[in-house]
Amino acid sequence: MNFASDNWAGAHESIAQRLLAASAGFASAYGTGDLDKKVEARFCEVFEREVSVFFVATGTAANSLALASVQRPGGITFCHSEAHVIEDECGAPEFFSGSARLVAVPGASGKIDPARLSSKIADFPEDAVHHGRASAVTITQATEIGTVYTLPEIGEISAIAKKRNLALHMDGARFANALVALGATPAETTWKRGVDMLSFGGTKNGCWCAEAIVFFHPDQAKEMPFIRKRAAQLFSKSRFIAAQFDAYFDNDLWLDLARHANSMADGLRGGIGASNTARLAWPTASNEVFAVVTKGAARTAEHRGATFYEWPIPAATPDLVDDNETLIRLVTSFATTKADVDGFLKCLAA
Amino acid sequence: MNFASDNWAGAHESIAQRLLAASAGFASAYGTGDLDKKVEARFCEVFEREVSVFFVATGTAANSLALASVQRPGGITFCHSEAHVIEDECGAPEFFSGSARLVAVPGASGKIDPARLSSKIADFPEDAVHHGRASAVTITQATEIGTVYTLPEIGEISAIAKKRNLALHMDGARFANALVALGATPAETTWKRGVDMLSFGGTKNGCWCAEAIVFFHPDQAKEMPFIRKRAAQLFSKSRFIAAQFDAYFDNDLWLDLARHANSMADGLRGGIGASNTARLAWPTASNEVFAVVTKGAARTAEHRGATFYEWPIPAATPDLVDDNETLIRLVTSFATTKADVDGFLKCLAA
Amino acid sequence: MNFASDNWAGAHESIAQRLLAASAGFASAYGTGDLDKKVEARFCEVFEREVSVFFVATGTAANSLALASVQRPGGITFCHSEAHVIEDECGAPEFFSGSARLVAVPGASGKIDPARLSSKIADFPEDAVHHGRASAVTITQATEIGTVYTLPEIGEISAIAKKRNLALHMDGARFANALVALGATPAETTWKRGVDMLSFGGTKNGCWCAEAIVFFHPDQAKEMPFIRKRAAQLFSKSRFIAAQFDAYFDNDLWLDLARHANSMADGLRGGIGASNTARLAWPTASNEVFAVVTKGAARTAEHRGATFYEWPIPAATPDLVDDNETLIRLVTSFATTKADVDGFLKCLAA
Amino acid sequence: MNFASDNWAGAHESIAQRLLAASAGFASAYGTGDLDKKVEARFCEVFEREVSVFFVATGTAANSLALASVQRPGGITFCHSEAHVIEDECGAPEFFSGSARLVAVPGASGKIDPARLSSKIADFPEDAVHHGRASAVTITQATEIGTVYTLPEIGEISAIAKKRNLALHMDGARFANALVALGATPAETTWKRGVDMLSFGGTKNGCWCAEAIVFFHPDQAKEMPFIRKRAAQLFSKSRFIAAQFDAYFDNDLWLDLARHANSMADGLRGGIGASNTARLAWPTASNEVFAVVTKGAARTAEHRGATFYEWPIPAATPDLVDDNETLIRLVTSFATTKADVDGFLKCLAA
Repeated sequence: MNFASDNWAGAHESIAQRLLAASAGFASAYGTGDLDKKVEARFCEVFEREVSVFFVATGTAANSLALASVQRPGGITFCHSEAHVIEDECGAPEFFSGSARLVAVPGASGKIDPARLSSKIADFPEDAVHHGRASAVTITQATEIGTVYTLPEIGEISAIAKKRNLALHMDGARFANALVALGATPAETTWKRGVDMLSFGGTKNGCWCAEAIVFFHPDQAKEMPFIRKRAAQLFSKSRFIAAQFDAYFDNDLWLDLARHANSMADGLRGGIGASNTARLAWPTASNEVFAVVTKGAARTAEHRGATFYEWPIPAATPDLVDDNETLIRLVTSFATTKADVDGFLKCLAA
Repeated sequence: MNFASDNWAGAHESIAQRLLAASAGFASAYGTGDLDKKVEARFCEVFEREVSVFFVATGTAANSLALASVQRPGGITFCHSEAHVIEDECGAPEFFSGSARLVAVPGASGKIDPARLSSKIADFPEDAVHHGRASAVTITQATEIGTVYTLPEIGEISAIAKKRNLALHMDGARFANALVALGATPAETTWKRGVDMLSFGGTKNGCWCAEAIVFFHPDQAKEMPFIRKRAAQLFSKSRFIAAQFDAYFDNDLWLDLARHANSMADGLRGGIGASNTARLAWPTASNEVFAVVTKGAARTAEHRGATFYEWPIPAATPDLVDDNETLIRLVTSFATTKADVDGFLKCLAA
Repeated sequence: MNFASDNWAGAHESIAQRLLAASAGFASAYGTGDLDKKVEARFCEVFEREVSVFFVATGTAANSLALASVQRPGGITFCHSEAHVIEDECGAPEFFSGSARLVAVPGASGKIDPARLSSKIADFPEDAVHHGRASAVTITQATEIGTVYTLPEIGEISAIAKKRNLALHMDGARFANALVALGATPAETTWKRGVDMLSFGGTKNGCWCAEAIVFFHPDQAKEMPFIRKRAAQLFSKSRFIAAQFDAYFDNDLWLDLARHANSMADGLRGGIGASNTARLAWPTASNEVFAVVTKGAARTAEHRGATFYEWPIPAATPDLVDDNETLIRLVTSFATTKADVDGFLKCLAA
Repeated sequence: MNFASDNWAGAHESIAQRLLAASAGFASAYGTGDLDKKVEARFCEVFEREVSVFFVATGTAANSLALASVQRPGGITFCHSEAHVIEDECGAPEFFSGSARLVAVPGASGKIDPARLSSKIADFPEDAVHHGRASAVTITQATEIGTVYTLPEIGEISAIAKKRNLALHMDGARFANALVALGATPAETTWKRGVDMLSFGGTKNGCWCAEAIVFFHPDQAKEMPFIRKRAAQLFSKSRFIAAQFDAYFDNDLWLDLARHANSMADGLRGGIGASNTARLAWPTASNEVFAVVTKGAARTAEHRGATFYEWPIPAATPDLVDDNETLIRLVTSFATTKADVDGFLKCLAA
């Protein structure tokens, strides 16, 4: 009953086996091998257009280097107040872009509020040398709190960004979970809505370590080989990333894994909604569930072997929990089983 | 007959299998899991003292972050003129240390000349604010051209560095190959000779991706958790690095693999030394062999399936090759077979 | 009737003359001349303790380099939401500190709210590698909106900072105006209240270009000579800054100039308070006055030759002005005359 | 008899007086005032084309920001081995360009050797991601050792740079001295020979503090307002720089001052050439003279009040001085008098 995080899981067997199979033989290094090229071609198919793909080591690297590629001196990137880039990356996005600033934009449900975004952007007129320059917008899909931007919502953010010629980046650490929740294609969710760059995360969805930056306009990626190398993110034995993605895409494994994780989360959502000792803190659509549970129920669950994080109460909703309650986060993954879900729900009922 | 580079090889089977075995189950993320802790303890055993260990994604990251941890504003790091850090890392060491400068020191056999080092350091008096400040020295073991610093040579460099209170870093991308060539222990080769930090490379010696920065004085590593995270080098599923090192150290696999690679290089050295169409360009002791071969022999070898790089003629020895000769580099690894070596030597004889 | 900004004024005659007098003769460069040393000694007298002083070119440089000197990887500096460092320096503070982040803390009257500061700092636990590290707090004295921290208020901020071992910086672009408003000594206002570093501004108070970073604990300034030189802020003919400060301190000219400026602002405050067409937007104590005036009165004043900026309505007080009103900022300086003040007040009455 | 450096002199009286005259009245800040605009127009006249001009605080800032404006990730700037940017700026050029590397190119007489430049550039093929990318070339005019590039020499360097599309920067800390030595116009010496950016130095030639970056192709300067502000180099009371340049250009004062300084150096060169106790170390053409003098003569001169620096023996000419000799540098300026020169020559004869 481990719901701590999708990055506590290991690797899906198909991916681990593919990696094993790729361990023999010689391949040219630094991303120039045949498997790398094959996987790059797969990315083009998946996104239904020519894209430029850059493997990197971590989601933080994907976000940071993507944003670095569009920064200018004094540049500003707009993100949600609870975005991973501003909360959990120790300043990496600023570091890699030579000190560009992140400006937080509030918004309900973990999503940037379009009106607030417009207003924040307006604080940075084109030539106001003292304030800095609006350069990019980044959104997280699925969001850090388990919600998912709808396609029109993405389009709305995109339209605001384009008006000021800002690059639009999507942090897709849980991209597959969002796709499955939306029932939309990768293309529809990204470049067809004006997304310029995607951090395509495989790690949380069953890979060991498989992250890629996808540029939907390859001519905007010209600096990236140098940005990546200078960032110490160019793997020599690059095929060990490629092999993971190769298995990941085969027969839509990636979507199956995400579908499974989301479905396990659905189970949790259903059970919690029907529970007397717990309730959903807010609606979520992907593989994260946030629940208000009685402290007693939380302790019981832990006592019976459940692992999860208690979560800080969002500043916007200080009255979310009573004195005898606590907010918890439950994350599912490819490795979550129905038995885990049922077991946990039983703890709540106990 | 692939002698292109040790990073063209895949992963040794024991390591790949261990990774597969580690793919199941849940483990806490970001380096806090049990396997991470076990492997850290192994590093302490291997080096016969308490050390601080930080896994990172690439050798470039290991070098850059180690050097960044000891930089000061206007800092200078002294390295050999042909060092990987100055030749092949696209400015990463400077980037991560906030623009510290690398100053090249010449020296025969790919090793820093101690007298030249002293002289270069003397160009930067303690308080000369215009010039910048001597901060660190880095040496590569084994060197980029296949030679190996002897223990007294390391001690001599170290003594010069200590006189000015400079940190001493060792780039150990091929550390195991050097150890085996010297017949020395990890401790004797590093902290017992005054090395402060080691880039401990596993990738070139049979791992997929296993690089670690080892600090021999843990109190000097206090900033490293933040330096690493800010550098986007903290893996979430850190155990996939730990698992590789776990297998790497078991039963001294790492030394066996290096011994094998060096022995294959010995075979090449012997055969080339006895050849009519080739000669050793300079003596080497690890898993790299540099040979002057006739252009005809080189073409024949390629035609018969050998893979290797032709190498630029070192500036110091412009007359190294005749018009009908070329300089080539041959690198062996755990994956090199005796058949490869024999096959290549036959090409030369043809 | 120029109330646009104190940096629209030129140089006070005593300062300009002293500069002229210093133009002859030779002096050793880069801050090593006799006049530099004399002025450094004056700083020690002014602050009643040994201090380290570094001249720089701009207030932005003073703030940025002071903060850079106490940053650590992933470091966070807390500032007021309307602080100059976060609003008007185009990312310079982050740039010079290798991407440290500024975190805005709200507070009434342009001053950091102590409870909000404590709460924000608590968001960054000591070893939370993902969030970044609390490193420094900066306050502006006088504030950007004309108010002044009282001595106990400084002490309260300081106590909070010290609890977490954060450096405390004071942006003193209008330090003299604050001193005069408080009737306090330089020492009382700074190190006796726990301030570690001060950006000591002379430019807005009658100098051409005279800014200094003052360290109250000289051992904390050891890196500064290199930080300043690397930042291209070390003047060769450093005496032209020294000469300005020399005149600035003579016979307490600096305090007289600030007293004059504040007194002119008092005149404006009095007249506006008594006016029918204007009112004070909020109380101020230094040389800045913010007034709500009818649009008609504003146009009349401009028409009669008054220069000032209309100011954005603070987000916290959206109802500050009616439809037929506007918010304006009036800044006085050494160069403001009683005739300017009277003239402006007459415009309002017209 | 002060020959220590041209930055030991103060300010020429005309410049100091103009500054005094400009001290009264109000002017809009941050480079937007009338005097700023007038001086910018003067730069266009001086250079016979539309140029973009940016005032900064120091020569180091001018060089660093000019080079930063043309850097790319992993960028390389080629400079002479003895260039100020690599010898005396504490890493500022690298710092401001996000860690771009300076690569030293040797050459006789303080000038880049064109063949060596071509060869060094060739070490960095266009797409070699590991090595970094050739981005810019910088030359110093007059050079750090008193020599001057001829117009054809500039053209030759420029042609090499253009072949690889590298920006060409000129460090003109002593630009006026070079112009006068060449008898060439500003235009002929710069953009007509392919120079893209010039660090135009006034400080060493009679100003207090007057440095400007001149872009000969204004469309290449679009990022500069932000680069400069972020670098903390945008003066609020910008007119105090403008006023200096205003006087500097009036009636060609700048050329007269340089002519005077060069002529004083001519006096030294003549006297030293005819001396028994001294000889010219190498030919120079501007306001710097390098002489080998007997240690006795050096001591005598110092004893009689002469100030100058002893200079390190260039590595390329280790036999330049005998045991009883020393190498000295003599720098003249607008403030040097014929009496100083004659006095010094008398010391040598004593």
